[in-house]
Formats: sequence, structure tokens, C-alpha cells
Amino acid sequence: MSAPVVAVVGGGQLARMMAPAAARLGVRLRVLVESPDGSAAQVLADAPVGAAADEAAVRALVAPPDDAAAAVLTFEHEHVPSALLVALQDEGVPVHPGPDALRHAQDKIVMRTRLTALGVPCPRWAPLAVDAADGARDLAAFLDEVGGEAVVKTSRGGYDGKGVRVVRSADDVADWLAAAQAGGPQLLVEEKVPFRRELAALVARRPSGEVRAWPVVESVQRDGVCAEVTAPAPDLDPALEAQAREVAAAVAEGLDVTGVLAVELFEVPGGTPDEPGRVLVNELAMRPHNSGHWTIDGSVTSQFEQHLRAVLDLPLGDTAPVAPWTVMANVLGSERTELTDALPEVLADGDARVWLYGKDVRPGRKLGHVNVSGDDLAATRDRARAAAAVLRGDAVPTQEQR
Amino acid sequence: MSAPVVAVVGGGQLARMMAPAAARLGVRLRVLVESPDGSAAQVLADAPVGAAADEAAVRALVAPPDDAAAAVLTFEHEHVPSALLVALQDEGVPVHPGPDALRHAQDKIVMRTRLTALGVPCPRWAPLAVDAADGARDLAAFLDEVGGEAVVKTSRGGYDGKGVRVVRSADDVADWLAAAQAGGPQLLVEEKVPFRRELAALVARRPSGEVRAWPVVESVQRDGVCAEVTAPAPDLDPALEAQAREVAAAVAEGLDVTGVLAVELFEVPGGTPDEPGRVLVNELAMRPHNSGHWTIDGSVTSQFEQHLRAVLDLPLGDTAPVAPWTVMANVLGSERTELTDALPEVLADGDARVWLYGKDVRPGRKLGHVNVSGDDLAATRDRARAAAAVLRGDAVPTQEQR
Repeated sequence: MSAPVVAVVGGGQLARMMAPAAARLGVRLRVLVESPDGSAAQVLADAPVGAAADEAAVRALVAPPDDAAAAVLTFEHEHVPSALLVALQDEGVPVHPGPDALRHAQDKIVMRTRLTALGVPCPRWAPLAVDAADGARDLAAFLDEVGGEAVVKTSRGGYDGKGVRVVRSADDVADWLAAAQAGGPQLLVEEKVPFRRELAALVARRPSGEVRAWPVVESVQRDGVCAEVTAPAPDLDPALEAQAREVAAAVAEGLDVTGVLAVELFEVPGGTPDEPGRVLVNELAMRPHNSGHWTIDGSVTSQFEQHLRAVLDLPLGDTAPVAPWTVMANVLGSERTELTDALPEVLADGDARVWLYGKDVRPGRKLGHVNVSGDDLAATRDRARAAAAVLRGDAVPTQEQR
Repeated sequence: MSAPVVAVVGGGQLARMMAPAAARLGVRLRVLVESPDGSAAQVLADAPVGAAADEAAVRALVAPPDDAAAAVLTFEHEHVPSALLVALQDEGVPVHPGPDALRHAQDKIVMRTRLTALGVPCPRWAPLAVDAADGARDLAAFLDEVGGEAVVKTSRGGYDGKGVRVVRSADDVADWLAAAQAGGPQLLVEEKVPFRRELAALVARRPSGEVRAWPVVESVQRDGVCAEVTAPAPDLDPALEAQAREVAAAVAEGLDVTGVLAVELFEVPGGTPDEPGRVLVNELAMRPHNSGHWTIDGSVTSQFEQHLRAVLDLPLGDTAPVAPWTVMANVLGSERTELTDALPEVLADGDARVWLYGKDVRPGRKLGHVNVSGDDLAATRDRARAAAAVLRGDAVPTQEQR
């Protein structure tokens, strides 16, 4: 067998959802998993156990002593040390996205600096000095400029709302300022954008340059975690849709991103009702992303298949939606201890397309998602929410959830 | 983790294609594979190696000493000894399809006898006596009745055209008659049906009784091997479509089949152009079947997901087609030694949905398939054939193939 091997760092649900695409294409996945019974490890034949930061483990993933070398190294998260990726690349290993691109998904200061230089619209922002007292002064000055409230972020290590804090004074982040001075992650501050809603623009790009974009979606976060995605974003002004796509393409090309790129955006209303407003980049992810889970059932080509195609420099697939609306509802851990117990009930609704991740239940943890496609937006949303509620084990969806 | 485990005997492409459905539903597959690098073993976390006829291996598959017992035992082929399945069932293991049903897919004499008793339309047929001289006399009498030509089949062990021979005299099967007398598979003879074309009716049935049918398809065989499937069968008289569905439902219920059932049919023209004709049952398969590979891309629910749902007694999924036409073209082994080499070319055709099985290439071996969906039948067929030709490595599809 000489089928190409795609080496993937990280064994969560994103790697798990690459498995069907790999099986289809006849491509072998070799996934570095954190534990032998993790989400991806449950469904993959070739899942060595090791840490993303462990050079020996990553090297064995790419070139095991007893098996074929990988055709490409890719990721389901951004936590592989840059130096190792640079070294591998220098040794001739194709790494997609490459370490130069990936740094922008690893470090928000690097990202903001670069996007600003590229002219990509971002919230107003500033880095905070590493010295705690200087950092506090930087923050106070920024707060003065933006009207007293802002968002402080750690440049590294944040996800799902972690590493993000709304502040009104330096006292609110005294702990982070001290930690930064002590060698912890650097901090940056951003204006608290008065956004109308959050959008996401998902694209894929091949090393040889081809770029394909899915329709821009609306994303709803709860407690910093993606809760629901509607594809396409309802009532999106065509000028804003075009802006969002241009921004995503500019980021993909400007940063030389290869693979799937998710650009999370704020939609900011215009000054008057006649103005279409604009989009600002919130976050980047250089891999399949929660805002693209709808593509598994709602688009001709899923983001997972597209990511594999892109990193292997294969022709990209059709990104057209297969229905007028697809709504993705995340299933976060709550009452139910075993989600498969809900299959008899949730599958009785013929419209719900279920993905369960095989993860142990913990409150707030992403355990699965449901996609529902349909012609009517309100009905489609209701069904997706109801199916997710069934999987969560909620007796009746709460008012906020409906 | 207490997710249900589905134990599957057989590690070919059918088990491989169950993997994505299992990953989606959060269900664990444990597949008994023939070799550690076989088609299914390449993509599955839990794939013990063993023979289907090895009682210890099958028992360890169902109830391994160090892991969860299976919620159900199912199959990708029919080659598990009945006695073992009966014993397991008696011990309380859910076996789907059950051994009583499965015997009809294992032995064509058992199948013909039962279908005849149920009033299901079959070709004229007769068993041949085990004694070679008596068997030759039985065959001669049958040939006299049907006009000099007939089809002799081995009751067991045939597949993909093997175990089937068109004969004009007992001399043509002297070897099989001798083998039958010596303890080899019994023989039966069937009329050579003057069929217009071959159809297949695919249904799924749950233990609790729910039955769902996909549209009846047209199937084209070459050298006894499925080459192409068109869904739905073009220009199928509605009365014949209804007949085909009724036959499939009658077989599923009459034989208490659980899981996916494929009923291969001959479409026989009526005596005059005004008569719709009729369908006769050719073969049965109680598992996902080549005639259902189109469902992966052409139907809301694939036969592989449906089989898992059915054997777990979960609600069955929607069997509606997602496009007016879907054509499945098989990729049989020919010139190319590594099919993934063709991915750059075949994926450049955005309409071709490819499934590769990761199998070593041998002439005539089923290595993968392509699904193409579209609004225009001729164009859809052309694209499916062209994509399969690319994967095979044919420079230009031959006249017969186009």
C-alpha cells in the first residue's frame, strides 16, 4: 500500500470527523492522540499516543521507524511548538498550515499586528507591556480612549472564552498582568465591539493557490462557546457578505494559510440604517472549526474532507449548500451521562443529523452536534434546537434556548 | 464509556464503509478482520484479526475478556457457521440478521424453497440430487422442460458470478456434480431468465418491525460483477416498481430479516408491449450491498448508517434521494497499481464523489466506486463512467463502458 498518509496532531472531535473523509478518499490518517480512548482514537486504526509538544512523538508521527512517512503534517489545534514545525519543514516535511501561517493562530498579538499591516479590518487594539506596571498604564490609556470598557486577552492559550476578560480597570486583570511579567502569556487589549452579531467566513486554500469559500454563516456564542450556527447567515447584506469573503481570502493569501481557515467576524452596524455596516476580524483558526460543522450535512463537501484535500494539495470540492438553510446546534454537557442513550429519541426525528464525539460528559464540554437542513429558517432552527435538547437530556428547551 | 458496541464479522469494504456512520452516531464498531491491513482494518480502532468460521474469534468479538460486550452481532458477509450463531442467540446475544434469516442468504436451495413457499416470484428452479447420476438426470429433465439451456448454481459459497454456470447438458457441470456427491456444495438449476435488465430493491428492517425502502435501482453486471447502478431505475413502470418493493418487503418480513436486505431482481418483459411485465428474485443479501453504494451520496441516509440503526433497533432514517439521478460506477482492478494516484485527476471533476477501499490491486477486484448525482441521466452516467475510468487508469473509456 502506498496510499498517502496524513499525520494529524491532536485527537479530539476534529480529528475524529476527519476519519470518514480519509476513509472515503483512501487516504490514511495517523493521528497523535492525547489518550488511547479519546474521541479520535476510538475510531482510528493508527493513533499513536503522545503530547503535541513532545518532539519525539511528533517526529515519530511524521516518520515512524516501522511504517510509511507522512505525505503531510497537519493539525486539529494550534499547540505544536513553532520551532519544531520550522525544523521539520526545513528537513523537507510538508507542513500545512506552515509554521509561519500557524503563528497567527497561536499568538493573538502576532495575528493583530499582521492583520493590521495587511489592512484587514480589526477591532482597535494594543499590546500591553510585559512589565506589569507599564502594562497597567497601557491598559488605562486604552480604556480612556475607548470609553472605559474593553476586552483583555492573553495572546496565547485561550479558547472557548478562556483567556478573554471584559475589564473596566487594570485591577480587573491584575493577576494576568503579574503572570505576564512572570513569564506567562503576553496580553493585548481590544475595544469591546458593539456588534450586531457574530459571523464566520470559512475558506480552504491549497498550497498551489486554489481557494474555495463556503457561504458566510451566523454564529451564536454562549459563555464564549459556539452554541449555534446558521448557514447561510440570515438577512446578510450582500455587501457585507462580499466583505467577509474578501477578508477571509485576504487572510488566507496574506498569511499563506493552507488547509481550512475559519475567520470569526463581528458584524458592526452602520452609522445609519441605510449603511450596510462592516465586519471586523475577531479570531482565526487554521483547521476545521466549529463554525463549519454544518458543512458535513449542509454542503456538498465537508470542511473535514476539504481540509484533507487542501493539505494534500488535491483539487478542492464544491462548497455549495445542499439546502436553503442548515442549522448546527452544539450539544454541550449537562444532565445526561451517555449521549447514545438519546439515539432512539433523537433519530425518531428524521431531519436531525447527529454527530456524537464519544467523549466523557463534563458540564459545558462539547460532546456532539446536530445539523438540520430545511426550507424554512424558523422551523429548521427549532428542530435543531429540539434535537440538541434531546441529546443534552433537557426535558424541555428553556426559553433562552428556543 | 458505555456507548453501544456493534460487532461485525468481516473486514472488507462493507465494514469499512460502516465506519463513518458509526463515528457519526457515537457507536463503537468492533470488526473481525481477515488481516491486520485489510480494507476495514485500515480505518478502524478496534479490529481483532480472525476467521469468520473460528468460534473462539467470533466469541471474543462479541464478548472480549477485557472490554464491553457487544450490543449486537452483525455481518458484512454470510460466511459465519449457522450453528455458532444459533448458539450465541440462545445465549442471549442479539444477532441481526438472525441465523434463521441468514440461512436464506447462505444457501440458495434454502432460499428458493422458502421464497417459493411464500409465493415470492422466482425463476423456475429445481434442486439437483446429491448423487451425481441422479443429479445429472434431474438436470436433463429440467433442461428438457425449459428448452435446452439453464443456469446451474452451487447452493453455497458463490459470489460475484462465481458458483454460477450456464449449461446445455449435464456434461457442462460434471465436475460440480462429482463434487456435490463428494460432500461439496449441493447444486440447483434455474431457468435462464430472458430478462430485460436487472433491478435491485434495497430495504432495511428493524427487529421491532419498521421497514424502509430506497427507490428501486437498475443494476448492470459485467462478468457476474456489479459494474454500474442507476438510482432510481430509469423508465421503470410504476406497477413494476410497486411489485419490486412488495417483493422486498415480503422477503424482509417473511424471512424475519433484520438490517439491510438487498433483493436482486430480474425485470422480465410482458408478453405484449402493453403488459408491464414482472420481476423475479435472483439473489438475496442480508447486509449492505453493492447495489446500495449510491445511497452514501445519493440518499439522505446511507445503507451503512441504516444497517447500524436497524441492527441496533434504532429509528430508521429517511431513504429519499437527494437528486433526480445518482449513478454509481464500480472501480475494478485494471492497469493502475495505486488508486490514490488518480485523486488529483478525479477530484478535479467536482461532481465525482469517490470511495476508495484501500485494497491491493488485482485484476477484476472491487477497489472503489464513484457516485455522481445530477439532473440529467445521460450526463450523470457519462460523468460517473469517466470518473471510474480515471480511477482505473484507462486512458479513454472503451465503447462498451461509455
